[in-house]
Amino acid sequence: MRYHKIPDETVRRLPLYLRGLMVSAGQGVEHISSQALADAVGVNAWQIRKDFSYFGDFGTPGVGYNIATLAKGIQKILRLDLIRKAALVGVGDLGSALLAYPGFKLFGLEIAAAFDVDPKKIGKVINGVEIEDAAAIDTLRQREISLAIVAVPRAAAQSIVEQLVTAGIKGILNFAPCKVSTPKRVKVITLDIAMELARLPYYIPRAEQTSEG
Amino acid sequence: MRYHKIPDETVRRLPLYLRGLMVSAGQGVEHISSQALADAVGVNAWQIRKDFSYFGDFGTPGVGYNIATLAKGIQKILRLDLIRKAALVGVGDLGSALLAYPGFKLFGLEIAAAFDVDPKKIGKVINGVEIEDAAAIDTLRQREISLAIVAVPRAAAQSIVEQLVTAGIKGILNFAPCKVSTPKRVKVITLDIAMELARLPYYIPRAEQTSEG
Repeated sequence: MRYHKIPDETVRRLPLYLRGLMVSAGQGVEHISSQALADAVGVNAWQIRKDFSYFGDFGTPGVGYNIATLAKGIQKILRLDLIRKAALVGVGDLGSALLAYPGFKLFGLEIAAAFDVDPKKIGKVINGVEIEDAAAIDTLRQREISLAIVAVPRAAAQSIVEQLVTAGIKGILNFAPCKVSTPKRVKVITLDIAMELARLPYYIPRAEQTSEG
Repeated sequence: MRYHKIPDETVRRLPLYLRGLMVSAGQGVEHISSQALADAVGVNAWQIRKDFSYFGDFGTPGVGYNIATLAKGIQKILRLDLIRKAALVGVGDLGSALLAYPGFKLFGLEIAAAFDVDPKKIGKVINGVEIEDAAAIDTLRQREISLAIVAVPRAAAQSIVEQLVTAGIKGILNFAPCKVSTPKRVKVITLDIAMELARLPYYIPRAEQTSEG
């Protein structure tokens, strides 16, 4: 079942709900109301109930949602029950930080392979993952890794993405600050950190604005 | 002038256009057509022309947009002409990578201050910025820094954000994987890296899906 009818905006919120549920579960909570989840994640309770209604309501009136059941349901819809391993390409400052990043575990995700072109980095182990020569990206297909994180400079991004597609990668989280082209079947999410910071000044009320040198 | 009529979706695309323009400028290009910009950034040309029409068309038929003029116009709308300095709080793996991140420069942005609570980190210099005691966050007001990047663990995020608000910070890019509450006048963009990766598996065609251990 592909849950074709779930709007993309709902899909975008599901990891947010899952994060809230996992944090609550970690605190020993078993049930949660839509209002409590709303407070935890910063989305309206009616929106949460509407989003959950797309895939069947797991809640019980007066008791709320069973956290374990709901989290499992969301993981299944997001396919986090099946697809968990990602490869990282580019172990510079950002790549190293991603390799050490503890946040993936909450979603059951892990960086299971890392690649770089720098001979000085190849062979080094970070967070239990040995950095491999980027020439070995081809081996990803046999290793059943279908996600990749790209943290290489702009100039290298497109060629790395093409290698990843050839190696059977189906989803790419791209940190390189540029557009990368892939066949339609390969989903790319580009996350340009500087661009996010660049959006902020627009929202600062003009009266409060300071003039910098 | 506040350009009140610009839709939020257009504001979100402006940094993308600016990035494309700056990259072209760096390659020595002086004029660009909406189609060439479209190819560079991955947005339809008609969408680009529509977005630019919100703040007056800088293009000349047959010649295209003057890159320097257009970039300056977008910088002004985004207030990147006035607001450029950000403070970083939390110099762990991710914070260190952000401090060394070369991508901010393209937008004229810079991390001008960095804070941590770890005595072993305080006093160290990364990329020309000396790490200060988080107790000194208060001094940001005098230093005319109005943006902040939060890269602390979840448990510390809300209290750090409150300190930043007290210190006069008006816009926050939050990497902590949680909701943080601020007064309405303070804009927060939360960027949960793991959550972005967690969205990818949903889009992988089921037939191609591999089953992992």
